[in-house]
Amino acid sequence: PGAVESKCTVDNGKAMRCWKDEEEVYFPTSYLKKRFDMTGKLGKDGSTFELYTSYAKMRTPESTYEPLGPFGHFATYSVETRDRVRCISAKTNVPMSTQWDPTPYYYPIQIAQYGLQHYSRIKIGLFTNSSLKIQYFSLDSNSNKTEDKREVLVGVKSNEWKGAAGMHETTERLFFNDEEKGKVVNISAGCLLIFIIKIIDDSFSDALANAGAYVYLDKSPDLHVVSFDWKPYDGNASFTVLAKMKQDDLLVLINYVFSEGNGKCVWQEEERSYDDDTIVQKPKKDGQVSYSYSYTGSSQYGEWSNVTRDILVDVSRALSSGDNRKKDDNVILHPGDIRLVSLGFRGQLTVRQQINQRVEQHSHAFRSAADWMIQNQDKKGGWAVPVERSIADRKLVLEPGWHSAMAQGHGISVLTRAYKHFNDTKYLLSAMKALELFKTNSSEGGVRAEFFGNVWYEEYPTTPGSFVLNGFLYSLIGLYDLSKLEVPVAEIDENIRMKIKEAQQLYSAGIRSLKQLLPLYDTGSGTIYDLRHVALGTAPNLARWDYHAVHVYLLKWISGIENDEFLSKTADRWIGYAYGKRAKHN
Amino acid sequence: PGAVESKCTVDNGKAMRCWKDEEEVYFPTSYLKKRFDMTGKLGKDGSTFELYTSYAKMRTPESTYEPLGPFGHFATYSVETRDRVRCISAKTNVPMSTQWDPTPYYYPIQIAQYGLQHYSRIKIGLFTNSSLKIQYFSLDSNSNKTEDKREVLVGVKSNEWKGAAGMHETTERLFFNDEEKGKVVNISAGCLLIFIIKIIDDSFSDALANAGAYVYLDKSPDLHVVSFDWKPYDGNASFTVLAKMKQDDLLVLINYVFSEGNGKCVWQEEERSYDDDTIVQKPKKDGQVSYSYSYTGSSQYGEWSNVTRDILVDVSRALSSGDNRKKDDNVILHPGDIRLVSLGFRGQLTVRQQINQRVEQHSHAFRSAADWMIQNQDKKGGWAVPVERSIADRKLVLEPGWHSAMAQGHGISVLTRAYKHFNDTKYLLSAMKALELFKTNSSEGGVRAEFFGNVWYEEYPTTPGSFVLNGFLYSLIGLYDLSKLEVPVAEIDENIRMKIKEAQQLYSAGIRSLKQLLPLYDTGSGTIYDLRHVALGTAPNLARWDYHAVHVYLLKWISGIENDEFLSKTADRWIGYAYGKRAKHN
Ligand SMILES: [Ca+2]
Ligand SMILES: [Ca+2]
Repeated sequence: PGAVESKCTVDNGKAMRCWKDEEEVYFPTSYLKKRFDMTGKLGKDGSTFELYTSYAKMRTPESTYEPLGPFGHFATYSVETRDRVRCISAKTNVPMSTQWDPTPYYYPIQIAQYGLQHYSRIKIGLFTNSSLKIQYFSLDSNSNKTEDKREVLVGVKSNEWKGAAGMHETTERLFFNDEEKGKVVNISAGCLLIFIIKIIDDSFSDALANAGAYVYLDKSPDLHVVSFDWKPYDGNASFTVLAKMKQDDLLVLINYVFSEGNGKCVWQEEERSYDDDTIVQKPKKDGQVSYSYSYTGSSQYGEWSNVTRDILVDVSRALSSGDNRKKDDNVILHPGDIRLVSLGFRGQLTVRQQINQRVEQHSHAFRSAADWMIQNQDKKGGWAVPVERSIADRKLVLEPGWHSAMAQGHGISVLTRAYKHFNDTKYLLSAMKALELFKTNSSEGGVRAEFFGNVWYEEYPTTPGSFVLNGFLYSLIGLYDLSKLEVPVAEIDENIRMKIKEAQQLYSAGIRSLKQLLPLYDTGSGTIYDLRHVALGTAPNLARWDYHAVHVYLLKWISGIENDEFLSKTADRWIGYAYGKRAKHN
Repeated sequence: PGAVESKCTVDNGKAMRCWKDEEEVYFPTSYLKKRFDMTGKLGKDGSTFELYTSYAKMRTPESTYEPLGPFGHFATYSVETRDRVRCISAKTNVPMSTQWDPTPYYYPIQIAQYGLQHYSRIKIGLFTNSSLKIQYFSLDSNSNKTEDKREVLVGVKSNEWKGAAGMHETTERLFFNDEEKGKVVNISAGCLLIFIIKIIDDSFSDALANAGAYVYLDKSPDLHVVSFDWKPYDGNASFTVLAKMKQDDLLVLINYVFSEGNGKCVWQEEERSYDDDTIVQKPKKDGQVSYSYSYTGSSQYGEWSNVTRDILVDVSRALSSGDNRKKDDNVILHPGDIRLVSLGFRGQLTVRQQINQRVEQHSHAFRSAADWMIQNQDKKGGWAVPVERSIADRKLVLEPGWHSAMAQGHGISVLTRAYKHFNDTKYLLSAMKALELFKTNSSEGGVRAEFFGNVWYEEYPTTPGSFVLNGFLYSLIGLYDLSKLEVPVAEIDENIRMKIKEAQQLYSAGIRSLKQLLPLYDTGSGTIYDLRHVALGTAPNLARWDYHAVHVYLLKWISGIENDEFLSKTADRWIGYAYGKRAKHN
């Protein structure tokens, strides 16, 4: 008994093709997908067709949260490969965003998440992801597979330092002993590559033609982090990492230059068109391509500073930096996708004869984020967002310079960890200052709002309030982190005592609100992202499934802290929604 | 190109049959119905299969509401045929409910709706429904089709009054002229039928054997309302209407007796079983069946009172009165389904020689409801519900004697109309008293609650609050009705002035709350019935589609009064939900 073609309509709409057998009528999957936002795909064994209510997996925390432990599942985050992250700034070593403005800017929440991601990886011992570990031990079968292979030193011997063709060995590449750094090499030659010279054979020599001096790097594909100390004497100093793409042998030059780069944090080197005097982007011809990162270092000219860069990340951000790039153009590279070739220097500078190559830079990234928080905290104790943010069709607009409870909370989560990890009180003092905005109303530049008398900490402190759930929950975690901080008794003063108590009170007030208002986010078949619709009188802003998953995760996180059955049961019900279990009707 | 059978799963659930053609996979309608509460049916021309999001039609008011006009679309209500309505009491002429208790009780909201239904029919001129009108003019082709056929008088001539066999013509059926009522007949014979005697031919004579006196009624199937004045002298007086079912010629005797009927308002006559001394219900044998209504009249023995009964309704409630009846056993009769045969009297009584037969009794029903409201208003100005009401799995329980804002509002809507319709100030005074409970909190026996500081009038004044939307909206209409009441200037005193102003303030406060809280009932694909889940921390209590339709209708009703775009747009969006238009996700 087969099926016969049949015509169907839904809600008096246009007809669609259906099939009808002896029992009933069958509706097309395309209708279900469109109407109910479902996802359909062939089952694993190919014999069944599977329909899913939610495309996002509902995860819950693996263990009870510890304030100084990993931050949720952030160890699995990869802030640096998000399409809206333009680059990891070579000036500050933290991410820059282009989410709401085409000119890269510092987004405090993203920076804090970058720090928490790397901190969590330290805590979990996940220095690299597991697929990478496998690659590491299989790709380079000749190499030594012991732990010390996670880090190598190059350039220690003076004969590793090659000069460009025609370079004067002694005057332009001078080896000596520095009081502070020991063995160093002084370089005083080379100029920045603007035109890349056609490569002749596989020797890379032409690509390095303009380097003052260079060293070949270790070929292990996992050792993609490069770190060294140098002392540039003026703005002409620069360095270049040459990497080779495994897929197509493309050579990628990443230049780090003292330049503001017109506000771009990474850009492709341009060549002047002789025809019309306009600047055109250099195509990927000749098997090589060149990008520059804006670099200024953390110190004055003539002073030592450390450089630590994850070249894998820098290459992926460079390759994703086209001017008219779309979301799909985001290039994500995995360890093994590139191999480092060399590190070259130009201009007037001194380099320590110890180039470090590593598999990761978690501690450096974490410290960079924490330091950014300290250096960019304003008088209000906040981390201002420098771009306008508008939501709800511009019904709610935040002018540049707004603060976010999520940034404040994340900031505190970074800083309390940095305080203990680096054992430096400056981080604690900064975390304490971050509380201030929690006590200031949105209308006065703070992040505090009320929903019918219930206090709320606003991710987007609009007027009227928007009451974004996930940002609020993250802000509570930050307050919790500070409220639980242990400080050596001898170091505790009245200010610390007061601020820790304040964090505790702000946290408790938030939890009370959460328990009151949580049901308002529940549609009986999913969740609502925020409560903007209450003040605006619009349709509820339903959370898409990945945000629904965030709601579930955060609720379980906090219900674990609070050991609260209502919160936990609500999260369980919300998990059910993602599997098609709807609330009953009357 | 045909379709091949295929296996499908949803959310990793159990496999179901699907069909697959060259383009995609097709899912069974049974899944869609179960999962999304949809309704499927064959299209009108039989060639298409139609799926519907909502089984309920979304109606909106036809015109702007007038406080003294029809009450919404209540003219189309039929309170008396609802399965939970046990009968229209023969004592009070208002409905009695068995919704929350098997013993029939007075439910003020239902009584008010009964009144408003009949008032609306008066205002709309819908004395009978349109299908009835057609039946009326087609069934009885020999009858006069003019307007006066809507009412006939029988029993005016003395020879219409038949005596039972063997009755003494003069002593037991005495015709004379009463000072007040004119021509009357005095009856002093007959006894109540307990055993119905087997009918021999089609003459009904045996069925009437025990009547003291009777008149044959008009045969027009539309004239199913019987009305007369009588003066019973003691509790043995009774009257019986004999009706015949069109479908199966079953004879139905409806007895109206001075009896409390063990708390039943209508019951089937029983016969004693000689075997075991238990009482068994008389089966529908012998082509006839007998029921009794508990009657006490509105006056003392020996005083005149009016009787007005809709026999069509009384027969349908009688036939639905089985002891173990289920919802499906509810018998709904339409004009034409029965024909009245006779009206008989027994015991010591006097009857006016003018039996009125009509097509409707709207004014009588409306006045009965309004009078019930006055006679049953308690000291607090409320109409208490005499049965327990529990909701949310008994998490919220109202003890017998609770008040409802919906009863108060509906009561006011009935009473303001009665005040103008019957031109009697007692109704206005009662309406004014009904305001009192709106100012008393639920916890103190009133109907006022607050949702995060927003005032609410509770259909079910539970603690914590339940915040049922539709009951609140109806209560606002009641307040509006009183706030807009016009009273002759000469009659206005300080009390009236104050109460009307109070109604206005209560209404305005309610509207403010409505505008604040309405978005909380919006799931983006439907509506929530109440806000019980907020305090209880449970899943939202989703409104089924017919309640969703009520929400839409009431919102449009009030948005029309308020001329408010937000309310109107919200209602429009809610209409969209019923046609599958969901709110967007972020
Ligand atoms: Ca967010
Ligand atoms: Ca209701």
